[in-house]
Amino acid sequence: MNDIVEQLTQVLEQRKSAQADSSYVAALYAKGTNKILEKVGEEATEVIIAAKDADRGADGAHLEVTKEVADLWFHSMVLLCHLGLTPADVLDELARRFGVGGHEEKAGRGKG
Amino acid sequence: MNDIVEQLTQVLEQRKSAQADSSYVAALYAKGTNKILEKVGEEATEVIIAAKDADRGADGAHLEVTKEVADLWFHSMVLLCHLGLTPADVLDELARRFGVGGHEEKAGRGKG
Amino acid sequence: MNDIVEQLTQVLEQRKSAQADSSYVAALYAKGTNKILEKVGEEATEVIIAAKDADRGADGAHLEVTKEVADLWFHSMVLLCHLGLTPADVLDELARRFGVGGHEEKAGRGKG
Amino acid sequence: MNDIVEQLTQVLEQRKSAQADSSYVAALYAKGTNKILEKVGEEATEVIIAAKDADRGADGAHLEVTKEVADLWFHSMVLLCHLGLTPADVLDELARRFGVGGHEEKAGRGKG
Repeated sequence: MNDIVEQLTQVLEQRKSAQADSSYVAALYAKGTNKILEKVGEEATEVIIAAKDADRGADGAHLEVTKEVADLWFHSMVLLCHLGLTPADVLDELARRFGVGGHEEKAGRGKG
Repeated sequence: MNDIVEQLTQVLEQRKSAQADSSYVAALYAKGTNKILEKVGEEATEVIIAAKDADRGADGAHLEVTKEVADLWFHSMVLLCHLGLTPADVLDELARRFGVGGHEEKAGRGKG
Repeated sequence: MNDIVEQLTQVLEQRKSAQADSSYVAALYAKGTNKILEKVGEEATEVIIAAKDADRGADGAHLEVTKEVADLWFHSMVLLCHLGLTPADVLDELARRFGVGGHEEKAGRGKG
Repeated sequence: MNDIVEQLTQVLEQRKSAQADSSYVAALYAKGTNKILEKVGEEATEVIIAAKDADRGADGAHLEVTKEVADLWFHSMVLLCHLGLTPADVLDELARRFGVGGHEEKAGRGKG
């Protein structure tokens, strides 16, 4: 399952040198940080709304949560790449906090 | 790098059967969906604030973005597990949209 | 200055009986709670982004904050009316908390 | 009802010269823009969650929406004052857009 994050990162890096009108991601980079952040805020809102619908058992809402979290993670990956960071940095941070993924130390922010 | 998501999922699943006072995650499950969603909203806000600081070159802000995105992804993983979904569902959705990860079809929501 | 909130409330109430295609507000009511909440989340995000720009002295950003807070208050007024509540309820709640507006008691949630 | 906004503005202005430990608002000003924005984001999230509960008829949820919108407006008023703006600027902007409050012109952003 897991090269997905790496492969997505490659896609997002490649789009940095693409024409703004050639893809959704290239257009988003061209619009800049504020536009990317608006999308992050929008998608977080939509996750919350979909999760409330899922929580009361609305039809199709669980699938909607999956799609909205995908939108949220995707736009935060675009943000990371736009700022010169990588999704791998984030996963390493999580691995460090939880002592998984080959890291030995434990729980940076004590969220375990 | 990538078994991190799988290993984190295992941690999050194990915490479901833990005592509420035994860990941050177990306590969060016990408080329920609204509390988890408050954290998702809070962390999205903190990503946006940190990214604005990083964008103007504030000291330490890039590292802060990494940590805040880690918080955001982490709490959305807790949400997924709380609702009986998995981070793998989300990555599969992204793989399908972008035609990566062994999937053949392309771009569910046309975000490529 | 202050009948503005009352007059806006009247406008928002009148739009409830309007055709969905006759105005922005009537269309928003027709789309329902989730769409109104998406707007609340979007506008909150835009307030945050504009305020970060204002904070570092970007050109025009203070005016932008005013406009974005206007959008946020406006969409939360639409939400209130959609749920059968009123902006006056909210102002009464604030008056009670802060002991202003003719109310005697003080600080419901202790925010003073 | 309506001097409430003016009186609240006076309270918020007075707190600017108060000791940081003397009140919630004075402490918030002292913590700075990022902390105020975190509160705006948090309260927007709580409005959304409460509204979803109200929408499905949960006990007490309508009252909760009123309180959360009060929190959201209050913290956005703190933000305005912190940035040297006023709630009156925002109400004037809304009055202008909707042609209410003695203003003649109509609908700045065409939201009518």
